[in-house]
Amino acid sequence: MPAAGLEGVVASDSSISMVDGQGGRLIYRGYDIRDLAEHCSLEESAYLIWMGELPNRAQLDGLKRKLAAHRPLSERMAHVLAELPASAPPMSLLRTCVSIMGLGDPRAESADPAVQLDIAQDMAAQVASIVASVHRIRRGHPPVRPEPALSHAGNFLYMLTGRRPDELAEHVFDNCLTLHLDHEFNASTFTARVIASTLSDLYSAVAGAIGALRGPLHGGANQEVMRMLEDIGTPAHAAAYVKKLLAAKQKIMGFGHRVYKTGDPRAAVLRAWSRKLGEVTGQTHWAEISEIIEKVMEEEKGLNCNVDFYSASVYHMLGIPTDLFTPIFAVARVVGWTAHILEQYANNRLIRPMSNYVGATDKRVVPISER
Amino acid sequence: MPAAGLEGVVASDSSISMVDGQGGRLIYRGYDIRDLAEHCSLEESAYLIWMGELPNRAQLDGLKRKLAAHRPLSERMAHVLAELPASAPPMSLLRTCVSIMGLGDPRAESADPAVQLDIAQDMAAQVASIVASVHRIRRGHPPVRPEPALSHAGNFLYMLTGRRPDELAEHVFDNCLTLHLDHEFNASTFTARVIASTLSDLYSAVAGAIGALRGPLHGGANQEVMRMLEDIGTPAHAAAYVKKLLAAKQKIMGFGHRVYKTGDPRAAVLRAWSRKLGEVTGQTHWAEISEIIEKVMEEEKGLNCNVDFYSASVYHMLGIPTDLFTPIFAVARVVGWTAHILEQYANNRLIRPMSNYVGATDKRVVPISER
Repeated sequence: MPAAGLEGVVASDSSISMVDGQGGRLIYRGYDIRDLAEHCSLEESAYLIWMGELPNRAQLDGLKRKLAAHRPLSERMAHVLAELPASAPPMSLLRTCVSIMGLGDPRAESADPAVQLDIAQDMAAQVASIVASVHRIRRGHPPVRPEPALSHAGNFLYMLTGRRPDELAEHVFDNCLTLHLDHEFNASTFTARVIASTLSDLYSAVAGAIGALRGPLHGGANQEVMRMLEDIGTPAHAAAYVKKLLAAKQKIMGFGHRVYKTGDPRAAVLRAWSRKLGEVTGQTHWAEISEIIEKVMEEEKGLNCNVDFYSASVYHMLGIPTDLFTPIFAVARVVGWTAHILEQYANNRLIRPMSNYVGATDKRVVPISER
Repeated sequence: MPAAGLEGVVASDSSISMVDGQGGRLIYRGYDIRDLAEHCSLEESAYLIWMGELPNRAQLDGLKRKLAAHRPLSERMAHVLAELPASAPPMSLLRTCVSIMGLGDPRAESADPAVQLDIAQDMAAQVASIVASVHRIRRGHPPVRPEPALSHAGNFLYMLTGRRPDELAEHVFDNCLTLHLDHEFNASTFTARVIASTLSDLYSAVAGAIGALRGPLHGGANQEVMRMLEDIGTPAHAAAYVKKLLAAKQKIMGFGHRVYKTGDPRAAVLRAWSRKLGEVTGQTHWAEISEIIEKVMEEEKGLNCNVDFYSASVYHMLGIPTDLFTPIFAVARVVGWTAHILEQYANNRLIRPMSNYVGATDKRVVPISER
């Protein structure tokens, strides 16, 4: 039997992203994530993930127009959001909204890849608007209408706060989304592919992926990291705090990765942004605490931090509330999910493993009066 | 690399059901499905799937009371159903309703297996009521309130039609649900387990499973079989019809199975019911057509029929509309899904396979003006 959790099992070919665990690289469609983070906007990288090539100017403008056109919430969705119980977890609300979106879309049944790509791009635009709007409604504020002139990242921050973000915040958040666009066969992406492999619709596959990302072992780590950073509070307490947790055999969130063995390249980009935002916002303690924890974990456990570790303080300094960290993950990852769904449709085989039955096989029913 | 679709790959241990492909047996928790179909009610088999043992009288009565108590639709759900677009596919409506159910349930976050089992049993009761109610609303009829004195199978038929089913219909439908309760790591069950492996909630996992079952390669086969039987119309046309399809290299639905190589034991039970219902309802032609198709497929392709082949005519003679065949599959399989989710929680490891990257790795970003 293979290792539990299908660890190390190759489920299928893919040409969307490659996690180079030994080399500490993440590749999207042939490009190193660090190259993309430095030189490309989120929209360029999203185009790359969906289409396989970076866009030229006309292609990029086309995608931007399409995303802007699909950001406004439909009347039905605005009505639904106003009626759903605001106390529910945001990821459950997002799962429900995506499921509802699918109800009214006859394109869902189309087998045409161009139509499915359309749905994918519409969905990416809508998911961002839904996450921002759900957050405002839960806090008792009216949703903010999208601003078509803004980038995807800038518009999200605008719809969240009602204020246009400054240039640095927009750029950093754009970078954060880029780093989270795709990551090979993580559990939510794999969920989306299993669902798509039955030739079910894109809404079913994305709703399933959201459900998987909702789990604390997948999407919840950076929220836990932020709670730990807040609990530590000041760099002077950091080392003792972590050593105490380690002595009590407790798990420190944001460290280790099933695939990366020499460090997560996304963490390096985010570490730099955590320092930079600390300087600009006068909150250098978050990066300082984080770097001390990193050092202790390296020394004591030989573990490197992963993407979740530095995204926590970066999101926090961008003014994003902790309970939105996982929904924001979905805002980015919906691009990867939909690209994987389209790839699965294009060369499909039903994903259906086997189980190793470990129960009895030879029981006979006895009358209920004798049980 | 393993075979595409994880074919033949063992994903994990399980003690819920065993598909014995060579022996043509399906085992639930140690009992042969034929033994259960002959001697046990659906409620007894559902108890077995969830709890691992057949119930005694008090345990069975407890489960029946619990299911009856959770069958009425909540006010929220009745309101939601009245507002959702009736034109949407029933499986998309069911996916959405299960997602909505999760929004208002604080138990979803509990790590207590007893609480999760409670949710599972409530959900099984609700899914049946939702499917019956969705169908009535789509046809412009008001939902029917459940009748607590009826069995799960009998009540479903009652909520669907507004009439109490006769004893034979209730018994046959009870048997049909029993045969569909679980089936190892089929695509929807595996979806539920992947989602549960992130420690996400039961509603997310079941909503994902419904999304997977919605796909035509998983849940849609018996609907296609019924359309074929109706298209053939009379036994005299059956052989020529199938031979013509085979000559045109077209797929005949309801035949072959990735695991069963010597016949699907569920098909044998359903074949007998198809004959019996044909005699009682004066519609012997469905079984006759079906048996001719079976013979041709055996001779020409060496393929045995599967569960979907005879469930089509059985459901049809029970008065169930063809577009409800897949939702009815969910009414039964929700028992297996939830049992698998609980089993996954009890001994969890994140399900996260790898992909085999087949794209480029060495591209460098060039300025957009040069693309």
